[in-house]
Amino acid sequence: MHVIVTGGAGFLGARLIQQLLAGEASIEGQAITRVTSIDLAPCPVTDDRVESLTGDVADPALIEQALGDDTGAVCHLAAVVSSQAEADFELGMRVNLDATRTLLEACRAHPKRLRFLFASSLAVFGPGLSQPVPEAIGPQPRSSYGAQKAMGELLVNDYSRRGFVDGRVCRLPTIVVRPGKPNQAASSFASSIIREPLAGVEAICPVDAGLPLWLSSPRAVVANLVHALSLEGEALGDWRTLNLPGITVTVNEMLDALERQAGTAVRDLVRFEPDAGIDAIVASWPGGLETERPLGLGFRADSDFDAIIQAYLEDELDN
Amino acid sequence: MHVIVTGGAGFLGARLIQQLLAGEASIEGQAITRVTSIDLAPCPVTDDRVESLTGDVADPALIEQALGDDTGAVCHLAAVVSSQAEADFELGMRVNLDATRTLLEACRAHPKRLRFLFASSLAVFGPGLSQPVPEAIGPQPRSSYGAQKAMGELLVNDYSRRGFVDGRVCRLPTIVVRPGKPNQAASSFASSIIREPLAGVEAICPVDAGLPLWLSSPRAVVANLVHALSLEGEALGDWRTLNLPGITVTVNEMLDALERQAGTAVRDLVRFEPDAGIDAIVASWPGGLETERPLGLGFRADSDFDAIIQAYLEDELDN
Repeated sequence: MHVIVTGGAGFLGARLIQQLLAGEASIEGQAITRVTSIDLAPCPVTDDRVESLTGDVADPALIEQALGDDTGAVCHLAAVVSSQAEADFELGMRVNLDATRTLLEACRAHPKRLRFLFASSLAVFGPGLSQPVPEAIGPQPRSSYGAQKAMGELLVNDYSRRGFVDGRVCRLPTIVVRPGKPNQAASSFASSIIREPLAGVEAICPVDAGLPLWLSSPRAVVANLVHALSLEGEALGDWRTLNLPGITVTVNEMLDALERQAGTAVRDLVRFEPDAGIDAIVASWPGGLETERPLGLGFRADSDFDAIIQAYLEDELDN
Repeated sequence: MHVIVTGGAGFLGARLIQQLLAGEASIEGQAITRVTSIDLAPCPVTDDRVESLTGDVADPALIEQALGDDTGAVCHLAAVVSSQAEADFELGMRVNLDATRTLLEACRAHPKRLRFLFASSLAVFGPGLSQPVPEAIGPQPRSSYGAQKAMGELLVNDYSRRGFVDGRVCRLPTIVVRPGKPNQAASSFASSIIREPLAGVEAICPVDAGLPLWLSSPRAVVANLVHALSLEGEALGDWRTLNLPGITVTVNEMLDALERQAGTAVRDLVRFEPDAGIDAIVASWPGGLETERPLGLGFRADSDFDAIIQAYLEDELDN
């Protein structure tokens, strides 16, 4: 079975592709035998079973080229992240909304009813919600990124209801610890304040130490995406949007864990320097979501933040 | 002050235009002195202050032509209704989503921050909600019409948050009694089962007699739209979507009122003939919404269903 992954050159996309080819996912009982990545850059996974199509995910020609008779699913991870979509409204609309629609239309035209996995975000939610946020609560995003993701959720659900695709929408928590360099996500600091100190480098925290964040490790998120892809659509019921499990941790609790894992000197490399732009976005997100239904469906959260740091250190040693 | 009304040839649009020109609305303290209707047909209101632009509301050239230096607001009422959007997916997407975006982009390019009134619908909601539905509950529509309206809500809110427009979104109840002929709204029967018997004609009810509906008279809805347009944006707060007030009435209670107003013989003209397609849409809508905040802002509901029938009879006698 062939799977298309948009954003396959990205950190999450590449890890997802590795897991798909490692036999972690199955679609209608069949293993994944080849993957096509669609991204601006080539997919970094070195495996003969991976094909990289480089270009704009909003270009219909790319998805047409990727789709084959053996295609069983599209995993749509490509996105313009939160601060970037705030800074460049047109780019965010084109990639986060228009490309989603283009992909859905291409899937609709395919002879098989393809699984369509859409990576949404806790950023669809707005401020002032009682927490953990119940599943029925509505998106009132305070960022264009969140608005675009919320529209994508509605599209995937309507395309699923009509039988055009077999959709599944996962609202991702903030992912910590991302390796590499900071990106233009408003939540980028949440990785930086762990990753940079562990490398002996100073990091800046732009939000209040007491702010609760809804977090997941890369490992847990990728495992949950694999699980979402493998589930029978019927298990998800009529409404295909799921809050992926996470853990609620304040910035202070994150730094306490950092100190436990790496010592006071490492923790002291984090400096607080408020940034109103970042705070306006990140503080509008809930610090916890209700996940009873997803947990019942077999999705999993990390045990605690110490384990997230340990997993990051293990993964970094592997590379 | 100039106002543009899309769907100005429609039943609601024409009534709204009449009220705007009757001095019922004001924008920043100024009266409405001229109105441009954009619709496939010319606006039926005979008044020198009304200009009709006929054509496709999704065509950017039309809105460009309509906008003037004196424009203060766009009231976006044009829509492909529920059963029609279900039957013709592309048409619904083009009119209900793309045209909304085109209008918002045109307003964004205008030198003034224009008020943007968007007519949404209770159809954004899905089934299984505890009722009356609290304001924070999320759209999980079971129709493409509802999905397209919910996406429009998100667009208007994001354009408002960014300061591109000064938006206000009104979720309309099912409007009863509409004059004239049945339309392609799934809820069209709700008017037919009153209007046709009053004219001595048989009518078919495609849903269960016990189904509760969330209703408003045309008078109340138009008054609420005028009020929404006249309010200062700040009064609405950060999230610009409002559930317009309505009353909860079952089909049976509607027919009881019909009998009280017109007699048993008139009521007996209604025949029940279930239609699964219509029922799937209409029964997914809530029968009541929480409207404490809108009532506090000065929006109003009808007193009861008998009054709605009486108002319809008065309006019909006037014509």
